[in-house]
Amino acid sequence: MKFGGTSVQDTAHIKRAADKVAAEVQRGNEVAVVVSAMSGETNKLIALCKEISPNPNPQEIDAVVASGEQVTAGLLALALQERDIDARSWLGWQAGVKTSESHSKARIEDIDAAPMRERLSLKQVAVLAGFQGVTKNGRITTLGRGGSDTTAVALAAALHADRCDIYTDVDGIYTTDPRIVPGAQKIAKISYEEMLELASLGAKVLQVRSVEMGYKHNMALQVLSSFNDAIGSDFPGTQVVREDDIMEQQLVTGIAHTEDEAKVTLFNVPDIPGVAAKVFGPIAAANINVDMIVQNVSGDGNATDMTFTVPESELARAVDVLKQEDDLKDADIRTEKDVAKVSVVGIGMRSHAGVAQQMFKALADKDINIKAIATSEIKISVLIARDSSEPAVRALHDAYGLHKQ
Amino acid sequence: MKFGGTSVQDTAHIKRAADKVAAEVQRGNEVAVVVSAMSGETNKLIALCKEISPNPNPQEIDAVVASGEQVTAGLLALALQERDIDARSWLGWQAGVKTSESHSKARIEDIDAAPMRERLSLKQVAVLAGFQGVTKNGRITTLGRGGSDTTAVALAAALHADRCDIYTDVDGIYTTDPRIVPGAQKIAKISYEEMLELASLGAKVLQVRSVEMGYKHNMALQVLSSFNDAIGSDFPGTQVVREDDIMEQQLVTGIAHTEDEAKVTLFNVPDIPGVAAKVFGPIAAANINVDMIVQNVSGDGNATDMTFTVPESELARAVDVLKQEDDLKDADIRTEKDVAKVSVVGIGMRSHAGVAQQMFKALADKDINIKAIATSEIKISVLIARDSSEPAVRALHDAYGLHKQ
Repeated sequence: MKFGGTSVQDTAHIKRAADKVAAEVQRGNEVAVVVSAMSGETNKLIALCKEISPNPNPQEIDAVVASGEQVTAGLLALALQERDIDARSWLGWQAGVKTSESHSKARIEDIDAAPMRERLSLKQVAVLAGFQGVTKNGRITTLGRGGSDTTAVALAAALHADRCDIYTDVDGIYTTDPRIVPGAQKIAKISYEEMLELASLGAKVLQVRSVEMGYKHNMALQVLSSFNDAIGSDFPGTQVVREDDIMEQQLVTGIAHTEDEAKVTLFNVPDIPGVAAKVFGPIAAANINVDMIVQNVSGDGNATDMTFTVPESELARAVDVLKQEDDLKDADIRTEKDVAKVSVVGIGMRSHAGVAQQMFKALADKDINIKAIATSEIKISVLIARDSSEPAVRALHDAYGLHKQ
Repeated sequence: MKFGGTSVQDTAHIKRAADKVAAEVQRGNEVAVVVSAMSGETNKLIALCKEISPNPNPQEIDAVVASGEQVTAGLLALALQERDIDARSWLGWQAGVKTSESHSKARIEDIDAAPMRERLSLKQVAVLAGFQGVTKNGRITTLGRGGSDTTAVALAAALHADRCDIYTDVDGIYTTDPRIVPGAQKIAKISYEEMLELASLGAKVLQVRSVEMGYKHNMALQVLSSFNDAIGSDFPGTQVVREDDIMEQQLVTGIAHTEDEAKVTLFNVPDIPGVAAKVFGPIAAANINVDMIVQNVSGDGNATDMTFTVPESELARAVDVLKQEDDLKDADIRTEKDVAKVSVVGIGMRSHAGVAQQMFKALADKDINIKAIATSEIKISVLIARDSSEPAVRALHDAYGLHKQ
């Protein structure tokens, strides 16, 4: 069971989380819990570091920030003991959560789960501080934003758990954002592949890395709400499972959208091998996240046009980086802000032609112009004007028949 | 160098502490620093535990509370790095601070200082989170209130340091409380024995255990202020040293007082071996701190009277405990609140008669009635009415000629 920051935001919420753990224990389950820091705490600790140093050393940031999950782990263990449930807190280093040395964005390399498994078999609930681990040299690391999801899935895999339940502030994954489409419905089962596309496309419920890890270890995940009385054993949320475990595959599972996009187009780039690396090498070195990449051969065959998107806040920096590249000095760089990406995701589209055509027609019917298109096996994304984003999502949700019956 | 809670209360104070560390490094010293939590933080964390559970498990309290020192250790390391000083934070478990298993009041059993010593020899400053350690089973412990002083002295001893400087919110130990006697003067050198008596008698500057540990390891301690620019290498504070290191011994070193006392007298207690254990056994079992103990044989020789003091807040509980003892059922228990203890401390009094007489006369001259007297080799304490406490301190400070020249 994993509880995120809003689910442990104060002692009242921690007690509620303890009630859910207690309910699972009463069903006879052995339970390991992973907790985030109280919401706001991590930002507060990072702000303290920044007050001391504009560019603080990641090793020390990690030592400071990891204290947030330490506090909630202890408090949840106390709340369980208060309910007469044997429980103890585990910190990353105590639970043998070994990570790489990339401080503030470490990767879990191994979890030595034997000691915790022994305690679980004695019916003691384990409450692990998420988001943190320890290097082979014994320094504390953190996993980066949303890292507690990754801790939870990695621990579930190491313990050979039957299931990993991610409690959060929504009660599952929806066919699209219910604030935009009131008729959006909760998806009962979704495949890892679809969840990965949705997670990376802006459905901010599960961290991408945790889904990848669940996929790799074939760990049954479930996303469910910590704000009602339901518990995981009743499967009230959205289950993320293998494709084979979904009886009847929907053509399209959901519609995702991201609003924070800016578009960069390079016209007249030399069409030679290695040019993409010339463009994206410096961008990656500057730690700018690139999302869509679209490349077209231009008319004369000697040059090409290339379009990609970055978060709008990083647009200026991306352009600066490109202008400093000698090899791109002839390129004509044009940018466009105020764009949004809308995507249709579904494993079913692999075996059905016409999904893309249906998308383009639905958008055309609403007079929405498409600025770029990118596709994968189970996803079609289009870039459109930002103010068309919500009408587009509604039109597509309708076109694919995703509304509640 | 040890910095207490008020000395690291916010990032501005942490930067100031870093300046002091930097000044010592510039003198060519190898420096290990021990820090407390930001002032108020420990209480805030304990309050969270109490919100969850009225009687929280000490193992989990320790896991929660130890996070406070973790944060300051990381922040001070960052502040040092910001000053181009190589530094890193060490948590109790990283520095091999092994303790007993008495959670929330653990004792340090050993510090494996080799790894830290190696880093110090490479001119890296070590910033250790005080107040915390780890059991042989790898659970986090804390040392109880004021435990960071103990951590500092224990680390200094383990590192074979030349000196242990305790930075606090006063600039040294005074002959008495300067708020009561404006002419009180700072003591340049004081013996461990005297400091022990003063510490346990209410001069709240150094935790008793840390002085005991300094004494045992013959570690030169210094108490000095973190609120001015002076650094330890200039010896601006009060040095706590061996008796032999004090050239000219004062007759009386200081006057201490505690206001929080209540007096319990048991009349008509059977005068037989083991009776003191009958009285103080249950009191100790109830975890009530007893301070002065005075016993007199009463008139008829078959019974005795016994007087002791407890913190006023624990008086009612102490009386309850005694009333439940069968062996004390004939005892007449009388109590008195609103008393204070005033003590005269000085190694010199060992070799000088008349110190006690001088005290009693000074009090008599001010019409202050003595309710009980207890003495040790280097201390005389009297119990008096609380509202006479300040006049008594002034009279004694005067009588022993402790005023500034």
